[in-house]
Amino acid sequence: MIIDCHGHYTTAPKALEEWRNQQVANINTPNLGPKVSDLKISDDELRESIVQNQLSKMKERGSDLTIFSPRASFMAHHIGDFNTSSTWAAICNELCYRVAQLFPDHFIGAAMLPQSQGVDPKTSIPELEKCIKDFGFVGINLNPDPSGGHWKEPPLSDKHWYPIYEKMVEYEIPAMIHVSTSCNQCFHTTGAHYLNADTTAFMQCLTSDLFKDFPSLKFVIPHGGGAAPYHWGRFRGLAQELKKPLLDEHLLNNIYFDTCVYHQPGIDLLTKVIPVKNILFASEMIGAVRGIDPETGFYFDDTKRYIESTNNLSNDERQMIYEGNARKVYPRLDRFLKAKGQ
Amino acid sequence: MIIDCHGHYTTAPKALEEWRNQQVANINTPNLGPKVSDLKISDDELRESIVQNQLSKMKERGSDLTIFSPRASFMAHHIGDFNTSSTWAAICNELCYRVAQLFPDHFIGAAMLPQSQGVDPKTSIPELEKCIKDFGFVGINLNPDPSGGHWKEPPLSDKHWYPIYEKMVEYEIPAMIHVSTSCNQCFHTTGAHYLNADTTAFMQCLTSDLFKDFPSLKFVIPHGGGAAPYHWGRFRGLAQELKKPLLDEHLLNNIYFDTCVYHQPGIDLLTKVIPVKNILFASEMIGAVRGIDPETGFYFDDTKRYIESTNNLSNDERQMIYEGNARKVYPRLDRFLKAKGQ
Repeated sequence: MIIDCHGHYTTAPKALEEWRNQQVANINTPNLGPKVSDLKISDDELRESIVQNQLSKMKERGSDLTIFSPRASFMAHHIGDFNTSSTWAAICNELCYRVAQLFPDHFIGAAMLPQSQGVDPKTSIPELEKCIKDFGFVGINLNPDPSGGHWKEPPLSDKHWYPIYEKMVEYEIPAMIHVSTSCNQCFHTTGAHYLNADTTAFMQCLTSDLFKDFPSLKFVIPHGGGAAPYHWGRFRGLAQELKKPLLDEHLLNNIYFDTCVYHQPGIDLLTKVIPVKNILFASEMIGAVRGIDPETGFYFDDTKRYIESTNNLSNDERQMIYEGNARKVYPRLDRFLKAKGQ
Repeated sequence: MIIDCHGHYTTAPKALEEWRNQQVANINTPNLGPKVSDLKISDDELRESIVQNQLSKMKERGSDLTIFSPRASFMAHHIGDFNTSSTWAAICNELCYRVAQLFPDHFIGAAMLPQSQGVDPKTSIPELEKCIKDFGFVGINLNPDPSGGHWKEPPLSDKHWYPIYEKMVEYEIPAMIHVSTSCNQCFHTTGAHYLNADTTAFMQCLTSDLFKDFPSLKFVIPHGGGAAPYHWGRFRGLAQELKKPLLDEHLLNNIYFDTCVYHQPGIDLLTKVIPVKNILFASEMIGAVRGIDPETGFYFDDTKRYIESTNNLSNDERQMIYEGNARKVYPRLDRFLKAKGQ
């Protein structure tokens, strides 16, 4: 089985975006609507949006199950206040839940949280619990910068975030550390802000002792860990200067990298530098980079090809990256699959 | 000859830091001093600070000439106003000039600019011209984020920066795009902010047509280009989505990466992915990562070892990285060397 731990519902029916646009237009006059009940998307529309897009590509490329969360760039936690984000997150999560109900063999949910800049993260807990307990979701996306590129929240190591971590540990769910749209003109969303956030999150963990407080807390750092694996020597050296333990011990019982790196040399580096047990298969398909690489003739984000082609992995190691590691990092997913005899 | 294009005066005599501390202490009452003339550092003190540090390591490791600029993390353009930065930059640049005078075979200057957040970059031009014309400097460091981690200036592609670019073109000097200390608690200075800035600068160039306006403008993106080479497929794909030309044509006549990547797999990736003509030897020694790598027994920042060991380069290509490319990117350096018969 091949599990893709990083998929977003980027292809939701247009009605979703229209509802959001109305919500944003009335951001200061929420009484003018839209109401949640104004959004009407049928099961057929959901099916169509998936069958023609993610599911057809999964079949074409050979992956089986995608951990599926709301579109990252649409989370836009910088817009409005807690109520704005709360309504929006509930809508987006429910759509992912419905997709998972329609295609239980191919999609399982991960929750977007109703974060808002300057708002206590514990306000996200009711939505988190609903998604885990009622929707059967197996993970969450945690945005370390709900300001959208202005980075006004404390680092992930700060007690500010502990209420979320306590729930993650209680429910045995990992968080993918994933920012949303940048509203800072310096940062292109998918070309700079996403990668910077990955590097930033990694370094926030490195400088802290967060995982002493939460030994079983698990973070998935997407986009191949941002700059971290490429600069692994730098990070090992900085940890040494800071008198931290070796990274294996200090971070690699808790931090995992996905394989959203869109060329062969990048995957070669990732699989050379990072222990296999810390790498989870992912493509973020259909996502930021949708084209065909003229150098290979294949989709940039068809990351399975790079994992198949690298010389750094045995077949057993490939299977860990495709399936085994995800079952460990997402124990609720493992139990879900086992209950189905998989 | 081996030219290291990225060295900072991190080992300046303590008196410099003490002067700066006093300047910062009186930031709102500059009339209380210190005066520039209060800073007294003798040639012997300068010699000692270099001979025992950078120069001894250059000899040990086998590099000949370092392009030497003031300590990056000490630039701290977020502190005070233009006058604060102006006085501080003049002092720091002059010390680099004196080092270059004392060791003309081993050091040549690159200027820090007296940038200040929200201040028109053209105010930096007098200091730039003094350094080029009077001090014989061959490049500048340009800080794309003088706010120190809050990113309040426009992107590098904005006309805001054009006065600097006009002077760079006029004087045939490249800019290393180098931020300074982060005063945003989210970003560790050398572990996140530096690398994020590299990635950000690269993406700002990618999304723009800056090099159409300035076909001969040259940027050196340090720290191996941040996350850019590791995610080269992502950037090629994003350029394609944005209907930009291939990166070779769009950016690689103007953007160069240094080799400050502190482990073998990172240098292997850099030299595999990026054309040799766009790679400049550098170590940023003595800099952020000063320790010995327990996995190799050698200094993390002894980057020459990785370049020697990689299988991706012929000896001719190594010599381009060590010397030839730097002579092209820094034409004033080339002329300086040629005038000495080198």
